[in-house]
Amino acid sequence: MPGESQLREFFTYLRFPSVSADPARVAEMAACAAWLRAKLAALGFDAALHPTPGPPVVLARRASPRPGAPTLLIYGHYDVQPADPPTLWASPPFEPEVRDGLVYARGATDNKGQTFAHILGTEAWLAAHGDLPVNLIYLLDGEEEIGSPHFGAVLRARAADLACDAILVSDTSMVAPGQPAVACGLRGIVCVDLRVSGPATDLHSGAFGGAVANPAAELARLLAALHDEAGRVAIPGFYDQVAPIDPAEAAGWRTLAFDEGEVLRATGSPALAGEAGFTTLERIWGRPTAEVNGITAGYQGPGSKTIIPAHASAKLSFRLVPHQSPGDIARKVQAFFAAQAAPGVAVATTYDHGGDPFYADPNTPFGRLVREALRETFGREAVLVREGLSIPVVSLLRQELGRDAVLVGLGLPDCSAHGPNETFPLEHLDRGIALHLAILQRLAG
Amino acid sequence: MPGESQLREFFTYLRFPSVSADPARVAEMAACAAWLRAKLAALGFDAALHPTPGPPVVLARRASPRPGAPTLLIYGHYDVQPADPPTLWASPPFEPEVRDGLVYARGATDNKGQTFAHILGTEAWLAAHGDLPVNLIYLLDGEEEIGSPHFGAVLRARAADLACDAILVSDTSMVAPGQPAVACGLRGIVCVDLRVSGPATDLHSGAFGGAVANPAAELARLLAALHDEAGRVAIPGFYDQVAPIDPAEAAGWRTLAFDEGEVLRATGSPALAGEAGFTTLERIWGRPTAEVNGITAGYQGPGSKTIIPAHASAKLSFRLVPHQSPGDIARKVQAFFAAQAAPGVAVATTYDHGGDPFYADPNTPFGRLVREALRETFGREAVLVREGLSIPVVSLLRQELGRDAVLVGLGLPDCSAHGPNETFPLEHLDRGIALHLAILQRLAG
Repeated sequence: MPGESQLREFFTYLRFPSVSADPARVAEMAACAAWLRAKLAALGFDAALHPTPGPPVVLARRASPRPGAPTLLIYGHYDVQPADPPTLWASPPFEPEVRDGLVYARGATDNKGQTFAHILGTEAWLAAHGDLPVNLIYLLDGEEEIGSPHFGAVLRARAADLACDAILVSDTSMVAPGQPAVACGLRGIVCVDLRVSGPATDLHSGAFGGAVANPAAELARLLAALHDEAGRVAIPGFYDQVAPIDPAEAAGWRTLAFDEGEVLRATGSPALAGEAGFTTLERIWGRPTAEVNGITAGYQGPGSKTIIPAHASAKLSFRLVPHQSPGDIARKVQAFFAAQAAPGVAVATTYDHGGDPFYADPNTPFGRLVREALRETFGREAVLVREGLSIPVVSLLRQELGRDAVLVGLGLPDCSAHGPNETFPLEHLDRGIALHLAILQRLAG
Repeated sequence: MPGESQLREFFTYLRFPSVSADPARVAEMAACAAWLRAKLAALGFDAALHPTPGPPVVLARRASPRPGAPTLLIYGHYDVQPADPPTLWASPPFEPEVRDGLVYARGATDNKGQTFAHILGTEAWLAAHGDLPVNLIYLLDGEEEIGSPHFGAVLRARAADLACDAILVSDTSMVAPGQPAVACGLRGIVCVDLRVSGPATDLHSGAFGGAVANPAAELARLLAALHDEAGRVAIPGFYDQVAPIDPAEAAGWRTLAFDEGEVLRATGSPALAGEAGFTTLERIWGRPTAEVNGITAGYQGPGSKTIIPAHASAKLSFRLVPHQSPGDIARKVQAFFAAQAAPGVAVATTYDHGGDPFYADPNTPFGRLVREALRETFGREAVLVREGLSIPVVSLLRQELGRDAVLVGLGLPDCSAHGPNETFPLEHLDRGIALHLAILQRLAG
């Protein structure tokens, strides 16, 4: 179990409501970044906040006295997903609470717990050895959950300070309790807003119903057209650039102890669903998707209000696989909706953010080293997986720093990363510290 | 123009936020009813509040000293539609404001302005004559906007007090400024909530997207299935009981100076739309509809939140024509959605409220008398129309009191009755008083 002061600091970190999607949280974002900077400065890092038009990036470096020591960059993010709806949280999202060995808080797993385990690992190493065996860089983003819109510019501006030999990103998942994993692939993403406008104001549905187009009904028609009956995305050209899943990789996935019943239990879904012809893992790891993340239209209060709403809108996200690109897919989405718009409404598709899909060779020297450290920490060989989620910064790191990140994770599949009641096992804080020490030991080696 | 004290009283009436759909407005509903009761008591009526499980019904009677005087019942309602979204109101919805001769307030037209014009008319008659030429009953409902769920029981409980020779309902519309109308028909209504449930909580759309059914997408699919490509409602059996529009009545409608351009201007819609094979007036007055009044699902805040929402729901209303019935249509709607539900979600349809469609002979003696009073007041013959909206109480009045109401209205088509910035022309308060006096004069004669 983590020590009392470690836990106290972790909880302080979790209490910052660092929701990057919410413009009202600017001050809390800045306070969270300042706290992180101070923590790393106290560990002897040259730590600074790099300003952006959004929240700052925390950049902290500590050189090793060893001549010719390699440089390791650890990426994490201090921003978190929105915590709504607050009513579904059993305890307040920004008041961490431990129940049955799990810390409940927004950001507990994604990504504060994982980031902080590494920082505590550095602290433990320094306590034991006084100095670091590698030049260590912490690069902590404040906009990961909104697609890191300013991160590329920071990488370019600080390229000289960020030159490194290896990159570790701890923002993915284990495949099961006790079973570590290295993720070789991530899905990309593109998020758009779709807005359908009709009458100038809400209309009385008795006085005008049947004679003017209803934007809510038209929005539903557009969203229903996104998929065909086989669960495929029906946007023309959507699959044009999709790389087929490599049969050898798919064979590896089939050896994993993957239990569809566990997915049903973890999600509470009545049944699995998806694109015909693919397994659940293939659907999540190797196939692109179109998802409706939210819809808002007209009256949503108690009882009824008999109106034709003036407009209706939806938030959509598309998960991409190699070699799809966010810009190309966004254009196809825009063209698809524009082509389907009925005469009585105006349809507008707005690009929110996007990130490239990622795939990297797991057998680089640093990749092998991390897998050895994982085996030492967990007593089991790490499995090679992909993740269905998107970490656009991983592609930016490749592009700007010329290194492929190695992706490990301390989260569990049922941690509710973007939902209510997000959790992180307290034990994994210790495991993360041990993993960090094992990596430094090997790099020192 | 109305006198200063008349306006002051009208504005006091408009300031009550008497939103029957909002359970938080119980006290304001009661205060509004008490104010109306006091106003009618001050005019010498035997005025009382009849309690219901919801807001009370205001029932006020004043007998005529004339032996054998007929009894006229005037129906109105003091509840109003919700005023959201408040941001779209140019002035606060419950702070009446006069701009360019129009009173802006929620309920200005529907129905406080129309009701209050009659009460002021009674006041004016009494001031001139001391006594009424008819036994007059005011029956003022507090739940019209939510389908008058308790009104039938009140009618049954007070049947003896409500026995009458004629019923006047002033809750419909003129067809244009200066052109009065008598409405022979109203559409019925049935309102339902549709709820689609999937996973137990919102899920990370990267971790699970593509592998479980998305309730927001499934809701869109269900709503998109409501209409076929010709704009017809696609629910099996929906049109089974629909009476075709009588060719003679349709011919009368074609003589009206009805301008489709005016509908576009009044609504701000880019184009008209609707069921193929019918004119705009036929679509609104003579054909049933399915409308989406609101949709809510998942994340609706700033930026994006990449989730699969746990559930999604929509508010639907169906406008009915003779001889459809709300119960029959609700059952067909429920069966339609149940049959379309995908395996990965649960679909629930909840009945909110309903009201029968209405059609009545415009040539009864009282019907003719009202049309003469309208001609005297406006200097033009009233046209015979229908209304697309629903006033379920009109059917209840027929059923419980055995009389067909005569439906007149002082509202204008572009009064934004259920939308933001609802208006009522101040001049129509005077016209309403004059109409009331003309009706009493004829009944006295």
